[in-house]
Amino acid sequence: MRQTFDESTDPSFGPKHVPLIRQAMAEQGLDGFLVPHEDEHQNEYLPAANDRLAWATGFTGSAGAAVIMKDKAAIFVDGRYTLQVRDQVDQNLFEIRDLVEGGVSAYLESATGRGQAIGYDPRLHSPDALERLKAAAAKAGVELRPVSPNPLDKAWGQARPPQPTAPVVPHPLDYAGEESASKRQRVGDGLAGRGADAAVITAPASIAWLFNVRGGDVIRSPLPIGQAILNADGSARLFLDPQKVTPELPAWLGNQVRLETPEDLPQALTELRGKRVLVDAAQSSAWYFEALGGAGAEVLRGDDPCALPRACKNAVEIEGARKAHARDGAALTRFLHWLATDAQASPPDEIEAVRRLEAFREETGALKDLSFDTIAGAASNGAIVHYRPTERLNKRAEKGSLLLIDSGAQYLDGTTDVTRTVAIGEPTQEMRERFTLVLKGNLALARVRFPAGTTGSALDALARVALWQHGLDYDHGTGHGVGSYLGVHEGPQRISKAPSTVALRPGMIVSNEPGYYKEGAYGIRIENLQFVTEPENIPGGERPMMGFETLTLAPIDRRLIDASLLNEEERAQLDAYHGRVLEVVGPQVPADVRAWMAEACAAIAP
Amino acid sequence: MRQTFDESTDPSFGPKHVPLIRQAMAEQGLDGFLVPHEDEHQNEYLPAANDRLAWATGFTGSAGAAVIMKDKAAIFVDGRYTLQVRDQVDQNLFEIRDLVEGGVSAYLESATGRGQAIGYDPRLHSPDALERLKAAAAKAGVELRPVSPNPLDKAWGQARPPQPTAPVVPHPLDYAGEESASKRQRVGDGLAGRGADAAVITAPASIAWLFNVRGGDVIRSPLPIGQAILNADGSARLFLDPQKVTPELPAWLGNQVRLETPEDLPQALTELRGKRVLVDAAQSSAWYFEALGGAGAEVLRGDDPCALPRACKNAVEIEGARKAHARDGAALTRFLHWLATDAQASPPDEIEAVRRLEAFREETGALKDLSFDTIAGAASNGAIVHYRPTERLNKRAEKGSLLLIDSGAQYLDGTTDVTRTVAIGEPTQEMRERFTLVLKGNLALARVRFPAGTTGSALDALARVALWQHGLDYDHGTGHGVGSYLGVHEGPQRISKAPSTVALRPGMIVSNEPGYYKEGAYGIRIENLQFVTEPENIPGGERPMMGFETLTLAPIDRRLIDASLLNEEERAQLDAYHGRVLEVVGPQVPADVRAWMAEACAAIAP
Repeated sequence: MRQTFDESTDPSFGPKHVPLIRQAMAEQGLDGFLVPHEDEHQNEYLPAANDRLAWATGFTGSAGAAVIMKDKAAIFVDGRYTLQVRDQVDQNLFEIRDLVEGGVSAYLESATGRGQAIGYDPRLHSPDALERLKAAAAKAGVELRPVSPNPLDKAWGQARPPQPTAPVVPHPLDYAGEESASKRQRVGDGLAGRGADAAVITAPASIAWLFNVRGGDVIRSPLPIGQAILNADGSARLFLDPQKVTPELPAWLGNQVRLETPEDLPQALTELRGKRVLVDAAQSSAWYFEALGGAGAEVLRGDDPCALPRACKNAVEIEGARKAHARDGAALTRFLHWLATDAQASPPDEIEAVRRLEAFREETGALKDLSFDTIAGAASNGAIVHYRPTERLNKRAEKGSLLLIDSGAQYLDGTTDVTRTVAIGEPTQEMRERFTLVLKGNLALARVRFPAGTTGSALDALARVALWQHGLDYDHGTGHGVGSYLGVHEGPQRISKAPSTVALRPGMIVSNEPGYYKEGAYGIRIENLQFVTEPENIPGGERPMMGFETLTLAPIDRRLIDASLLNEEERAQLDAYHGRVLEVVGPQVPADVRAWMAEACAAIAP
Repeated sequence: MRQTFDESTDPSFGPKHVPLIRQAMAEQGLDGFLVPHEDEHQNEYLPAANDRLAWATGFTGSAGAAVIMKDKAAIFVDGRYTLQVRDQVDQNLFEIRDLVEGGVSAYLESATGRGQAIGYDPRLHSPDALERLKAAAAKAGVELRPVSPNPLDKAWGQARPPQPTAPVVPHPLDYAGEESASKRQRVGDGLAGRGADAAVITAPASIAWLFNVRGGDVIRSPLPIGQAILNADGSARLFLDPQKVTPELPAWLGNQVRLETPEDLPQALTELRGKRVLVDAAQSSAWYFEALGGAGAEVLRGDDPCALPRACKNAVEIEGARKAHARDGAALTRFLHWLATDAQASPPDEIEAVRRLEAFREETGALKDLSFDTIAGAASNGAIVHYRPTERLNKRAEKGSLLLIDSGAQYLDGTTDVTRTVAIGEPTQEMRERFTLVLKGNLALARVRFPAGTTGSALDALARVALWQHGLDYDHGTGHGVGSYLGVHEGPQRISKAPSTVALRPGMIVSNEPGYYKEGAYGIRIENLQFVTEPENIPGGERPMMGFETLTLAPIDRRLIDASLLNEEERAQLDAYHGRVLEVVGPQVPADVRAWMAEACAAIAP
């Protein structure tokens, strides 16, 4: 069993750990300390050793921050985590605030006193984030003081888990589809084209992509923590903990890549004196900017030069994604069959559902890991967007309610992420109506054609309009990028209300996951992954249009569809999708599942 | 007759005027000079005296720029004007370049030589635009040198028309709906809230709105050119050419507003020493920033504080807009009746169509002006998005083709802007299909409901999806803001592909104008104005939703609709719209027009 159901923190973490942090703050002469969720590598998912926010507060969400002052403290979370934070954090100790509206900056302005010294660790903040904080501190007349080591790490001390040392292994060309040398040349040419001599690459996903390697330092992702300097000529220096270097790695990297240790990095940065060096100000911490600036390099702020080429999957990666999704779809379909048959008579609890699904995936023989801990949300737990079942919160699915299962897997040939919502017993008419509105949004975003230059934010509303027309909406983005045997959340593209200037490009994989959440009652989400197709001429049209091909293949619960709310185009689209599911998944599953599928994938009557 | 059909420029303008400009450049020691389209007031539409780009090049479009070097020259226009520029500008003299892709900055980088001095007039560039130009000049090793007076104005000399001096008159409360004192207090409070002591207001539409006055300095808009300093306490200094001050104006402005002359402005700016002064870096020229900075004021860059309150029309303005559109719809419907009856037998030319329409509007007795020169585009001229008929270009509508008419009017109670496309003779099936796809987009954007915070860029795709699915698109925005007896193009909201952070708010008027253009053949556009309605609960829903109410009332040509492409919801929506047209416009028009309307507004058969 990969997934566990314990809780790594509890609300006593704050009362136990904050006094230790305050003592270390006092020793350093600080009136406060900033605790971001991000770690040295600006990852979304953290190794346990770097989850400082969880250790200080008890909060385990994937985004947030805290400010610990001598005599008060506040924690900042976004709309996804307003319920969870109250459950995990001691509110006598921490004031709960909104991360987005105002956030830490507003707190610095309003809750600190002139002349106070607030410490921060420059390794933990991107320069972009730091500049906003510094502006707020300046307004408040507060000093933001860099500290190293920081008081939290000092307080954590011996109790802190060790840094991860998962082996870094080659990612074969059969999956990667392009030699590292070719990628380095391509990205290097791009650097030269914008007048840069080199780039500092720190995002683990970019390290993995650029050198065709995979690791395991970050939970649920094959990400290797490391740093690299890529030169415009395509040569590179790669800094990895020697414990992680597998015997085959040096030869795999070739002689254009110098393998070094993280201890060599500061010296390597000083050797960039006089060079023009590109660094991503959102992905790389302020420490790199200070080190390069101090060394006399000219720092160019720009996007991680690997982010866009990594996001645009090549033909081998797309073919891998198709295979991974066919395999994963069969595992998920076996699970949905179980839910629709045996489990209807005696509904499972969430943990049982998670175990069953993991077992089906394990039986594929190809599972490297889950791509994230499965969210199984029964009834009201389904309305908590970032819910994760634990022994304490575990709930049994009730007849007449819904079970939401959001899950994914890591296979060598691809990463999956899929959500299905299933009726347990007989759903109410309200559930069916709202499920169908969510489905209409999913279908609209799956069938849209669009010209070059279109961003995800231009398409987001298509997934919401059916809900909006009925006075409903959901408080999360509609789609995120997904890696190829890499992170399940990957930029730079996304489909959301937030304005974006990143155009969708062929080969980008994005999720399509509208939802609806009735607090205290149930949650609905339908999520497929889809990739952007090449621009193609449409008969009778004038301009080539891109579109999406859906990768995820698993039945959508027909018992939750109110066909009277679908128009002819939508019915035909859903029927065609179910036809593909039957065709691809059917041959992979046992006869009883296949027999059930025939019904589960049958055409929708108007 | 208000509209004229002559051409104010011709391609000889460049050959005649550029040598004069070059001579003045040489006298000032310049190797080049930047000619923006914008004038001292950063207006879209210019008084003839300030249309420097037209005088230098012959190009009369509403956006563009030129760079005149000693030995070469280039003109920059966007996608709307690629045909027009070739018609108006001598290409032996001017290289034609894209204003958006690269633009003037790229030209400075590639086409100038190190050490050259390029002059610019700081009164003609916003600081935002100037910073981009300066960055490009720095890369190219070129000096951007401020010059005053600039060599173009010197060359123009006595031939330059005088500055406009239209009288500035009170705009009564029956139309404005809010006292100037109340507006000044409201905007002043906003200034105080962000720590500003004052704002410098230079946009003529903001001057008009803030002081409840109207003028006539800019063609087709009742805009008064002037400047104001608004203090956080609601008091103000207003700088107007004394020739424009009507006798009733001082009393109308009241004793909180000091009326002064433009000559007093520089001194008034120096009196802001030590104050925090808000200036809009996109609306106000760099000259203001330099003057305030030089005077020792602290300049805060921010949006024109009048822009957002001006855009959100109050109840009186909305009621005025309804009346203006009912009146204007009657005039337009009389015109459409003529086009559908008499004009079918013997199709008119474009100028005749424009004259007829203007005559119907004049007969309302309320017409203050057109809101822009009517675009009547017959057949292939309809495919030129910013076409304006002239004696030289005038074309007769052909049987079996389309006539596109985009027009609008200025009334005291509101500004209108409407486009209808009408079949002359029997349209082809292709025309009907494409018209119906455009109509589907217009209907989708008219019926959408959306939550607070939604921007126009999030809704833009709704108007395009039907076209996109058929491999078609249009190369202009879908909607622009419209003033209340003010400019027909007004920010800050817009509906376009370009990312926007300005949320739509109740009372904002926007156009809804998808189109399709077949170069060399015909153009289709359907444009209605609509305003954002207050958030309202939807039965069975949970969140209040805003929406749109359509203001424009005139039949949409049913002969161009392929009903088989509309779904039931779209047919019902169109029928309901035509029902409103019949109800509101019907009683205002003669009996024969009313009889025709019954048919033109009849329900669409499936």
